[in-house]
Amino acid sequence: MSVSSTSTTTGGVATARGFRTAGVSAGIKSGGAAGKLDLALVVSDTPATVAAVFTLNKAQAAPVLVSKDHLGRSHGVARAIVVNSGCANACTGESGLADAREMAAQTAALVGCPVEQVLVASTGVIGVALPMDKLRDGIADAFASLSASHGAQAAQAIMTTDPFPKEASAAFAVGGRTVTVGGMAKGSGMIEPMMATMLGFVTTDAAIAAPLLHRALVEVVDDTFNAITVDGDSSTNDSVMLLANGASGVTITDDEYPQFVKALHAVCLELAVGIVRGGEGATKLVTVRVSGSASVAEARKTAKAIANSLLVKTAIHGGDPNWGRLLAVAGRAGVAFDPNRAKVTIGPTVLFADGRPYDERAAEAAAYLKGADIAIGVDLGVGRDESTVWTCDLSAEYVRINAEYRT
Amino acid sequence: MSVSSTSTTTGGVATARGFRTAGVSAGIKSGGAAGKLDLALVVSDTPATVAAVFTLNKAQAAPVLVSKDHLGRSHGVARAIVVNSGCANACTGESGLADAREMAAQTAALVGCPVEQVLVASTGVIGVALPMDKLRDGIADAFASLSASHGAQAAQAIMTTDPFPKEASAAFAVGGRTVTVGGMAKGSGMIEPMMATMLGFVTTDAAIAAPLLHRALVEVVDDTFNAITVDGDSSTNDSVMLLANGASGVTITDDEYPQFVKALHAVCLELAVGIVRGGEGATKLVTVRVSGSASVAEARKTAKAIANSLLVKTAIHGGDPNWGRLLAVAGRAGVAFDPNRAKVTIGPTVLFADGRPYDERAAEAAAYLKGADIAIGVDLGVGRDESTVWTCDLSAEYVRINAEYRT
Repeated sequence: MSVSSTSTTTGGVATARGFRTAGVSAGIKSGGAAGKLDLALVVSDTPATVAAVFTLNKAQAAPVLVSKDHLGRSHGVARAIVVNSGCANACTGESGLADAREMAAQTAALVGCPVEQVLVASTGVIGVALPMDKLRDGIADAFASLSASHGAQAAQAIMTTDPFPKEASAAFAVGGRTVTVGGMAKGSGMIEPMMATMLGFVTTDAAIAAPLLHRALVEVVDDTFNAITVDGDSSTNDSVMLLANGASGVTITDDEYPQFVKALHAVCLELAVGIVRGGEGATKLVTVRVSGSASVAEARKTAKAIANSLLVKTAIHGGDPNWGRLLAVAGRAGVAFDPNRAKVTIGPTVLFADGRPYDERAAEAAAYLKGADIAIGVDLGVGRDESTVWTCDLSAEYVRINAEYRT
Repeated sequence: MSVSSTSTTTGGVATARGFRTAGVSAGIKSGGAAGKLDLALVVSDTPATVAAVFTLNKAQAAPVLVSKDHLGRSHGVARAIVVNSGCANACTGESGLADAREMAAQTAALVGCPVEQVLVASTGVIGVALPMDKLRDGIADAFASLSASHGAQAAQAIMTTDPFPKEASAAFAVGGRTVTVGGMAKGSGMIEPMMATMLGFVTTDAAIAAPLLHRALVEVVDDTFNAITVDGDSSTNDSVMLLANGASGVTITDDEYPQFVKALHAVCLELAVGIVRGGEGATKLVTVRVSGSASVAEARKTAKAIANSLLVKTAIHGGDPNWGRLLAVAGRAGVAFDPNRAKVTIGPTVLFADGRPYDERAAEAAAYLKGADIAIGVDLGVGRDESTVWTCDLSAEYVRINAEYRT
């Protein structure tokens, strides 16, 4: 894939210059084969500018609270991110906060930076305390194995029950110098009982002031990580963190900002879509594009309602070109909508337009739905704005996964 | 069941005095055994006061549009309701409107009343025209078989793929006279592809002015039909209609209003809960009570979010006492919520309180979840208001039902 002057490259969170990462087994993940990677470290060789966004859930996990606290005190600078999987450190009260702070403090001591320059993330079981002895050893191991070639290990170590790791990178040139943006993410809905969390970690060797970095992250996350849905639930631990260390020698100002955003968008979109592809029980990636809307916000609202509709998700799972369900969701989405001017498209096939169905095309649409990459279009018939979200189908396997008895 | 001076009785929409009903087979339902009932008629011997509420979906079916038009022109008086199943007459354009108007006109001619005193409802496949020849014969048959003892046939005739008919009635005494409220309903989510619709029809032999009748219906529907959810989708045809013909000789004024509302509530709640019990793929009825809220609206919003959460519904299906999912939904519901003062209860068992889990009680809660009637409680820890909604669990059978290929 090549987006204008941006080119996507192989590799993940350690692709940008001046970053080293590690992924080790600390023994936090119980069950399964010994040696499962469950602790990741991302370290910038020099102080990096930082931006981050967190879950809006009011039940925020300890690592989210500690990371937000550190961001508020670090004047936009960070050196490292420490992440564990296997335990979310959520709903764990005061002792959970102390544990998250200790993770940061130990990492800071090893890296040699103030504690507020370390961000913390956790993912896994809710309501269980972190095994701090194992974690301490794991952090020491990870620090000892930091390398610019360990991006894949880090991407493995943040997985819970993701079916595959998610890595992406992109690069663009400014005045003969290459700027690289790389990242990793995890998330699969809540594929194991009491598991949750979407995490994204992105690095770049661009130099960029904290306010501009924050603006870029918020802008890009809104159209990527915030535009995906597996099951409509958001977790206590969701976090996306972005470090920029300037190792490329390129400074991003207003002039280079569009190119930087384009590269950041390419990386975040690839990671976000990867989460949906690996969504629990998913057999199809579904792109829902709502157009003809009175506003972008209403287009997004409608697209999310369609993407979260059980009736739509099950119809797509079953290969049923059920335009009536799409119209019915648009009608209840609480947005401006004119059924007489609306249009419903599945793949290249128009199934409803001009106030009437085209059921003679149902077989064509059904054949298209046998594929794994599905595009759905709904035109609301009232305006010119649009929005796209990504989701997956709903399978009996989803129910099986989430209904399994936990205790 | 006996609610104070209100007693629930057997029978349905024909229980109140002065109403006759019919349920016949017009051959609208395709497939299946011949003779499936699919046309219902409800007629009041005298002009009745009428109140009705309809779907807020912007894609409203022809019978909804025609009924609303008639209500606007009838000065609060109605004589009859004509209902067919097997075809929703939705997304059918101008010809669909003409068909709905003809259903009303034929019924009005037979009953001998102005056309605007007839309400119309349809449920079944979307986007298909009504077979008007069959329908005309069916309406004539139904009129010929009207009887005060045909309530059960009418309840059968409005079903689509409901697993069982829903009927309820209640009575109370005023000055030695008995007032009866009776009703029937249908709905099961969207159990067959392209099928939808929740319909409720309630009659009473009380005399009551139209504004007071409307107030009672809105008040009661909000806590009954509007407090249930099977899959979070609302249809193009949802309607609840209420006729009051005064045949009991009792007039409802402000003095008798609380008793009337109590009886109406008992009937509507029984019908609404019946819809959830018969929800597609449902194996459990789940009562979600949210308390400790800053407002009733926020309690309702949270209860609906919990009732529609796939993670909650699958956990209950699997018998998993997963309090973390309940907390996480409360946290993302967009309401005032204090995780440190929140409380989560499954049946009689408190699983989270005082900012910490009580996982030692998980086995007790798991045993409770093996039952078919499940009560979930979430206290938001911020106020004193509360709200209750009813839903069902989410099974693999739901997915199978809704994923089946339609064409």
